[in-house]
Amino acid sequence: MTAPAYRRLTVEERRDQLIGAALVLFAHRAPEDVSLDDVAAAAGVSRPLVYRYFPGGKQQLYEAALGSAADELRRCFAEPQSGPLSRRLSRALDRYLAFVDGHDAGFAALLRGGSVAETSRTDAIVDGVRRAAAEQILLHLRVEPGLEPGPRLRMAVRTWIAAVEAASLIWLDEGKQPPLPELRDWLVDHFLALLAATAAGDPRAARIARAALALERPDGPAGRLVRQVAPVVGDALHLL
Amino acid sequence: MTAPAYRRLTVEERRDQLIGAALVLFAHRAPEDVSLDDVAAAAGVSRPLVYRYFPGGKQQLYEAALGSAADELRRCFAEPQSGPLSRRLSRALDRYLAFVDGHDAGFAALLRGGSVAETSRTDAIVDGVRRAAAEQILLHLRVEPGLEPGPRLRMAVRTWIAAVEAASLIWLDEGKQPPLPELRDWLVDHFLALLAATAAGDPRAARIARAALALERPDGPAGRLVRQVAPVVGDALHLL
Repeated sequence: MTAPAYRRLTVEERRDQLIGAALVLFAHRAPEDVSLDDVAAAAGVSRPLVYRYFPGGKQQLYEAALGSAADELRRCFAEPQSGPLSRRLSRALDRYLAFVDGHDAGFAALLRGGSVAETSRTDAIVDGVRRAAAEQILLHLRVEPGLEPGPRLRMAVRTWIAAVEAASLIWLDEGKQPPLPELRDWLVDHFLALLAATAAGDPRAARIARAALALERPDGPAGRLVRQVAPVVGDALHLL
Repeated sequence: MTAPAYRRLTVEERRDQLIGAALVLFAHRAPEDVSLDDVAAAAGVSRPLVYRYFPGGKQQLYEAALGSAADELRRCFAEPQSGPLSRRLSRALDRYLAFVDGHDAGFAALLRGGSVAETSRTDAIVDGVRRAAAEQILLHLRVEPGLEPGPRLRMAVRTWIAAVEAASLIWLDEGKQPPLPELRDWLVDHFLALLAATAAGDPRAARIARAALALERPDGPAGRLVRQVAPVVGDALHLL
C-alpha cells in the first residue's frame, strides 16, 4: 500500500511541469530567443511530448507561461486590510518588485512591445493584471463604509500602476539601480504624493486621503515623507 | 511670368499630401481599419499613385504618418525656459492633450499594443517621442547652472511621462472625462507632487525642487496646489 518510488506524472502535473520550465526560460530571455527544444530539454522530455500538451507550439506555451506569471503578479497585490496604507503598499511592492527582478528579461520583452509573441491575447492578460492590481488597491482605499473612491481616485490608482510599471522598466534599463528598497520607498512616496495631489481637486479623494493619513504612524513611510518634504515646501511660504 | 493657376505637385508636396491624408485616417481609426484605397480616395488620387510613393504599401504609409505625428508630439514639449515651471508644464500639456483629443482612436490603437501595424520600428518611434519629452522637461529642471538633475529625478520625469500617457489612455476610455483643463491641472499637480516626493529622498532633487518652487506664484498652479493640500495634510500633524 506504499506509494511507488517512481510514478508517471498526471496530465495536470505534466502540464504544470512544462509551464514551469517554460516560465523559467521566458523569464530571462525574449520570447524569440526561446525554442520549443529549449523547453523540452529544460523539462527533460521529448519535443513531441511538449507538442502533445501544447499543439499550438511555442506561442501556446508562451501564453500559458504568461497566464501563470499573471496569477503570481495578481497575488502580489493581495494584502490584508489592516495597518497603515503605506505599510500595505510597501509589502505589495516588495512582492511585485521581487517578481520584476526574478523575471527581468521576460518582463521587459513583454511590456516593451514589438515582440513577435505579442498578440491581442497576451495584451489582454497583461491588462487583466493591471485591472486586478487597481481593484486591490481601491479596496484598501475604501477606508470609510459607503465612501466609494470615485472616478478621479480610480484614475489616480490606474495611473500610478502604469507609473510603477514604467519605473520597473527604467530600473531594469539602469542595471537595477537604485537598490530595490529605495525604489520601493520612492514608489510608496509617489503614491502618497499623488493621493494628496488628487485630494487637492476632489472632495471625495480628500476625505479618503484624510482617513488614510490618520492611520499612518510617525515611524512609518508617510511620517518620513512628511518630515522630509516639509523643509522643501517650507521655503515656499510665499505660495500660501 | 505669372505662376499657372494649376500646377503639378512636386514629389515632396505629393508625399506630404499623402502622409497628411493618411494621418487624418489613422488618427480616428485603428490601423487595421484603414485601407490603401481609403488613403487614395481621401487624397483624391489613384491607388497606383499611392504605391508609387509608398512601395511598402499601408505599413510604410502608417510609419510615415506616425513619424509625422511624432514630430508634432515632440514639438508639444518645446517651451521657452521662462516663468514658473508649472506654467510651462501646463502649456506643454495643453498641446499634448489637444493632440490626444485630435488623434483619439489612432493614439489608443498605437499605445494599447496588439495592433497589426505595430513593429519594433513603430515602437522605436514612440520611444523616441518619450525620450524627447523627457529631455525637454529635464531642460526646464536645470534651474541652477551646473546642477544636473541626476538619476533619481531623471527616473521621476520618465515615470511621469509614462503616467501622462496612461492617464491619456484612461481619459479616452472614460469618454474623455474629466474635461481637458481639469485633466491638465491634475497632471501638473501630479508632477509637482512627484517632484516633492523625489526631493524627499534625494538632496540634488531637493535643491532643484526648492529653486523651482521659488519661481512659482501664489495665483499659479503650485500656489493653488499648496493651499489645497495644506488642510488635507494639516490633519496629519501626528506624523511630524
